[in-house]
Amino acid sequence: MDRVPFGVPGLDPLLQGGIPKGNSILVCGTPGTGKTIFALQFLYIGATQFNDRGMYVSIEEDPEDLKKQALQFGWDFRPLEEKGMVRFIKVPIDTVNTDIFKMIGDAYVQMNDVRRIVIDSLSILSINASMYTLPIKTMVDGKPQFMENGLVPSPMTLSDETKQFIYLFVSKVSELGATTFFIGDSPEKGSDFITRDTVSEFVCDGVIKLETKEFGKTIIRTIEIKKMRSTKAEVGYHTLEFTEKGIMVKPFEY
Amino acid sequence: MDRVPFGVPGLDPLLQGGIPKGNSILVCGTPGTGKTIFALQFLYIGATQFNDRGMYVSIEEDPEDLKKQALQFGWDFRPLEEKGMVRFIKVPIDTVNTDIFKMIGDAYVQMNDVRRIVIDSLSILSINASMYTLPIKTMVDGKPQFMENGLVPSPMTLSDETKQFIYLFVSKVSELGATTFFIGDSPEKGSDFITRDTVSEFVCDGVIKLETKEFGKTIIRTIEIKKMRSTKAEVGYHTLEFTEKGIMVKPFEY
Amino acid sequence: MDRVPFGVPGLDPLLQGGIPKGNSILVCGTPGTGKTIFALQFLYIGATQFNDRGMYVSIEEDPEDLKKQALQFGWDFRPLEEKGMVRFIKVPIDTVNTDIFKMIGDAYVQMNDVRRIVIDSLSILSINASMYTLPIKTMVDGKPQFMENGLVPSPMTLSDETKQFIYLFVSKVSELGATTFFIGDSPEKGSDFITRDTVSEFVCDGVIKLETKEFGKTIIRTIEIKKMRSTKAEVGYHTLEFTEKGIMVKPFEY
Amino acid sequence: MDRVPFGVPGLDPLLQGGIPKGNSILVCGTPGTGKTIFALQFLYIGATQFNDRGMYVSIEEDPEDLKKQALQFGWDFRPLEEKGMVRFIKVPIDTVNTDIFKMIGDAYVQMNDVRRIVIDSLSILSINASMYTLPIKTMVDGKPQFMENGLVPSPMTLSDETKQFIYLFVSKVSELGATTFFIGDSPEKGSDFITRDTVSEFVCDGVIKLETKEFGKTIIRTIEIKKMRSTKAEVGYHTLEFTEKGIMVKPFEY
Amino acid sequence: MDRVPFGVPGLDPLLQGGIPKGNSILVCGTPGTGKTIFALQFLYIGATQFNDRGMYVSIEEDPEDLKKQALQFGWDFRPLEEKGMVRFIKVPIDTVNTDIFKMIGDAYVQMNDVRRIVIDSLSILSINASMYTLPIKTMVDGKPQFMENGLVPSPMTLSDETKQFIYLFVSKVSELGATTFFIGDSPEKGSDFITRDTVSEFVCDGVIKLETKEFGKTIIRTIEIKKMRSTKAEVGYHTLEFTEKGIMVKPFEY
Amino acid sequence: MDRVPFGVPGLDPLLQGGIPKGNSILVCGTPGTGKTIFALQFLYIGATQFNDRGMYVSIEEDPEDLKKQALQFGWDFRPLEEKGMVRFIKVPIDTVNTDIFKMIGDAYVQMNDVRRIVIDSLSILSINASMYTLPIKTMVDGKPQFMENGLVPSPMTLSDETKQFIYLFVSKVSELGATTFFIGDSPEKGSDFITRDTVSEFVCDGVIKLETKEFGKTIIRTIEIKKMRSTKAEVGYHTLEFTEKGIMVKPFEY
Repeated sequence: MDRVPFGVPGLDPLLQGGIPKGNSILVCGTPGTGKTIFALQFLYIGATQFNDRGMYVSIEEDPEDLKKQALQFGWDFRPLEEKGMVRFIKVPIDTVNTDIFKMIGDAYVQMNDVRRIVIDSLSILSINASMYTLPIKTMVDGKPQFMENGLVPSPMTLSDETKQFIYLFVSKVSELGATTFFIGDSPEKGSDFITRDTVSEFVCDGVIKLETKEFGKTIIRTIEIKKMRSTKAEVGYHTLEFTEKGIMVKPFEY
Repeated sequence: MDRVPFGVPGLDPLLQGGIPKGNSILVCGTPGTGKTIFALQFLYIGATQFNDRGMYVSIEEDPEDLKKQALQFGWDFRPLEEKGMVRFIKVPIDTVNTDIFKMIGDAYVQMNDVRRIVIDSLSILSINASMYTLPIKTMVDGKPQFMENGLVPSPMTLSDETKQFIYLFVSKVSELGATTFFIGDSPEKGSDFITRDTVSEFVCDGVIKLETKEFGKTIIRTIEIKKMRSTKAEVGYHTLEFTEKGIMVKPFEY
Repeated sequence: MDRVPFGVPGLDPLLQGGIPKGNSILVCGTPGTGKTIFALQFLYIGATQFNDRGMYVSIEEDPEDLKKQALQFGWDFRPLEEKGMVRFIKVPIDTVNTDIFKMIGDAYVQMNDVRRIVIDSLSILSINASMYTLPIKTMVDGKPQFMENGLVPSPMTLSDETKQFIYLFVSKVSELGATTFFIGDSPEKGSDFITRDTVSEFVCDGVIKLETKEFGKTIIRTIEIKKMRSTKAEVGYHTLEFTEKGIMVKPFEY
Repeated sequence: MDRVPFGVPGLDPLLQGGIPKGNSILVCGTPGTGKTIFALQFLYIGATQFNDRGMYVSIEEDPEDLKKQALQFGWDFRPLEEKGMVRFIKVPIDTVNTDIFKMIGDAYVQMNDVRRIVIDSLSILSINASMYTLPIKTMVDGKPQFMENGLVPSPMTLSDETKQFIYLFVSKVSELGATTFFIGDSPEKGSDFITRDTVSEFVCDGVIKLETKEFGKTIIRTIEIKKMRSTKAEVGYHTLEFTEKGIMVKPFEY
Repeated sequence: MDRVPFGVPGLDPLLQGGIPKGNSILVCGTPGTGKTIFALQFLYIGATQFNDRGMYVSIEEDPEDLKKQALQFGWDFRPLEEKGMVRFIKVPIDTVNTDIFKMIGDAYVQMNDVRRIVIDSLSILSINASMYTLPIKTMVDGKPQFMENGLVPSPMTLSDETKQFIYLFVSKVSELGATTFFIGDSPEKGSDFITRDTVSEFVCDGVIKLETKEFGKTIIRTIEIKKMRSTKAEVGYHTLEFTEKGIMVKPFEY
Repeated sequence: MDRVPFGVPGLDPLLQGGIPKGNSILVCGTPGTGKTIFALQFLYIGATQFNDRGMYVSIEEDPEDLKKQALQFGWDFRPLEEKGMVRFIKVPIDTVNTDIFKMIGDAYVQMNDVRRIVIDSLSILSINASMYTLPIKTMVDGKPQFMENGLVPSPMTLSDETKQFIYLFVSKVSELGATTFFIGDSPEKGSDFITRDTVSEFVCDGVIKLETKEFGKTIIRTIEIKKMRSTKAEVGYHTLEFTEKGIMVKPFEY
């Protein structure tokens, strides 16, 4: 089976060498657990060590801020952008009726052979869902035809239509064929679901959870592969460390 | 009583030989607990060891991905498909007004003598319920007649109508007479209900729950038969193991 | 006081001989706790040992499946049906505007002198409430008159109208005068209410709760009489055992 | 200060002799904790030992059933009804637009000098609130005038309007001047509020809570005066016992 | 800084002498914790020991009942009313479109130099919010102008509009300049917010919480200053005692 | 990297010298944890020690009250206002259709080179969101154009539209380029989210949480940097002390 390595020290062995190619991965955690860094490292290592083209789709977040965050760890994305290896795309959040899938799909086709995609984040997307539209088919005389406006989540029913919107969005982006990270914010401990949209955790092929766990006075960052289709994955927590060169994964010890 | 064996080592003895024939079984668990593998094994063993025809209905999930997951355990579904022993059916999620029961019912009739069905999953179905329609009767002058559009869950009232939709869907599929697995996603621990639709757990004849339990640093996968009509079933957890050849069940020890 | 004995070994002494005649009893528990078996035993023992006519009203559940479940314990309902001692009535769930009380009331009158009724279940009824109608009165010039359509829970407001519907349904069935078991599904532990409809527990004269309790690795089935009007009842849990001849109740020991 | 004694052994001393005259008391607890018995005893002792006229307003519950419950403890209400000392009033629940306050107020005036009232129960009233109407004033040119229909809780907004309805109902009944028991059902432990209507606990002058507490295998019934305006009250639980002659209160010991 | 002393023994030292003058204080607790007594004592001591005029605004609660409660502790408000030192104002709850701020503001102006106000209570106000109206401005051509009807919380959206209503009400009453106690009911332990309106706790300058805490079999009343702007306040619980002369505060000991 | 120091003793070292310049910081905590003092100190130290111009935007709260609170710690803002180093802006809450971003943006431009902004608070803003409007674009023939009214949260759908409103508001204010503190109220412990708006915690670059923690009878104020983009931050709690000169941070010890 083709695999897409993280290149994060200590992480690939937990997945027998990497993510099954083309899988969609939910990367989730509460604010401050390192989801963005983790995703940037995934693209940077992909481009520099494995020659994989990458695309970072940020909903509103400024690409310049993202590149600044990357520089902390010595990852310079500018030369990669110039060589066409990585592209940052900013999807606006204050423009009504943006066809979000067309924006991403067009960039994907233009760039050619994109192998790694990051969507940052499903949470921001779901809050602003009423700004976006997704193409959808309707059944006329037993044959599906495209609807003029597709699915337009109305603010009146945000909670329910948005779940469907997120579900369809993840499905459509996954069909592009790249290995994709969807970043999602988790509620604090004690909630019924891993993500605030409550659906991305089961539509994605894999779920990776980042946490900050408290043990008495000690606080330890952890990573856990909660689900990964088409491969064996080691169950349980592992320790996550931020070094000067990015994230490292080690056996959990306390 | 006729019984349908799982063929999963260690599981059938817990049910005095297998599932009572024709029962509808909810297979539930949080993401990553192995529900899909469990269902694939049920169909594969059925077709190869018991000569039972099987049908796997996936709501949107690509059949090719499912077969790839099966190959990890050495289960090759392609020859079974060619012999007409197993069939994968993909129900689209972005087409409005799909008569979902007709799609499944037609395939069932065509295939003839289907004994095992998997529906994957009720959770995806419930999120996208507003895309589907179900035939329903209305009372005119004291006599039931078919309504033109049946039950069409509107997005305005997704939460309540969807429960009724899921309920009717499970009832109608169960009436086909096959032994059926309905896959359902469970919320994280602490919720009031076993499934997110909150109704499938009591409309099904049986409920099998897959879990990942934490005991200090050790994480153990478990299986529990929470309910099984028309037969005795052993209460309590059992250990679930993923081997190279699929799932095995053992007494729970810790 | 007239009492209706369960005939379940060990249970009647907890209620000074049985249920006060004509009481409405909520039998509740999570899926798999044995509510249906308990209700079938109530009707079977009633008909064979106490010469009480019984009626089993199933909302959608197939009577043949119910009789099959009963046969596990050696209870054969067919001769009782032939003698007119027990009747199974199936209320459809996919027919809009069914006057559910009329269906039950007509059968009750036809059968004559019914002493034990089982309604299986309030949970299925509440999910499908928008299919049913109940007769109701309106005040015109200070005098109550029957409304054309009665109470028709609309799907728009299912949650609130359904509570009222369930409340009225239980009241009207209770007025028939038989000793009635209403089966209800309980949410998992930790909920604010015993039943998912949240009203049946206080409209019924009695509440009997079936549970599966975990004590370390041991799992014990229990029964508890949480409420019983017009009689003394022993407080606290008792152990419930499934034997080859049905349910037995013993003092709780652990 | 004028006080209205319970006459329940062990209870009056906790309140320095009884309830301050004219107070409205919420009597709450989960199903099966003895609220109805407690209220019947309050009326029976009032009529037989203190010569207080009483009125029992049941929302739907059949007065004959109530009197049967009372007979368990040797309280025979029939002679009291004949002498005009106690009156049972049944308010129907399936009649739309019943002016509930008028029904109660008319009976109150007719009976003359009623000193003890029981309303059984606020929970049933709140579930069926859309059947009832309450007179209310509107401001026209700065002067309040009566509105034609008063407050008619619509089923569309049951939850919010019903709170206001319950609030106004308790206020209006309290203004009649009798010492009044309002029976209310409590959710199971763990809820944010003592009652399911969430408002009666603070509109009433007093709150008395009945509970069934579990201490290991022992189950003890308790009573607690959670609030009592205009008098000192002893804080904390007391043990409640059902004897052959009704309820007794003892110091809590375990 | 000018301070307004409570005059409650043991309490002022916790706040370096008293409440900063003009602060708005939320006094909250579950039913029966003594909020009304605390507020009455605040007005009584203010008028008799510090010559501060006071105003008690009760939403519906009868002033005569309040004065009766005060007499338990020997506080006779009648002479103070006659001298114009204290005034009780009853705001009706069953009159639609009452301009509540005008009622309070007019009384405030008439009475002249009011230094202490009690609003009893925000909870009753929020339940009946749809009866009231508040003046509000709208922006026309960039200039604010008064709207004809102001903010009229509709029963359709009670929960959200009511929060805004409560927020504005507290702001406007606070602007009068007196030191004001707003009484609010707390949900039982375990809720996300201190008050049921969820907004008064952060709009007020101070929050004082009264509780009844259980320590094994002992129950202790406590007071806690959770927030007080413009002054230092001692953190943590203190014991609250009801004596014959009112409330006393002592160090918490157990 | 440019950093903006707090100047609070003990705090800057936890962030390697200060907040990355231009970051948006959520300062959250329950009522009474010192959020306002913390923000005032941030502006005061900025103006007096680092020559940073500052702007304090209060939603409704009176600037005079804020300055009075600052004086407790010896911070006199009046000379700073006169020199144009700090400006207090009060945004009204009872005026419909206020374009809140224009108010803030105009002041920002007028004042010139503002480096520190405080928004106090997002909670008050979200409660009163229906009073405000935000400019927004719509897509016409594939090109974004400004909508006449922008986003006007309607009271009908406050909860969902308000989240989007808060999200856009934080984004737009952050784009001004100053280092900004957004004050937000946290629910009591046990909630799923850190803030009551549930979105500010992940749109902001940093999250600083203030708490009052109970350890037996001892209560300790703590500060925790839960998230900080573009820099390393020390994980875990630190002790917060209020001294005569403001806040100090020390290692957590208990």
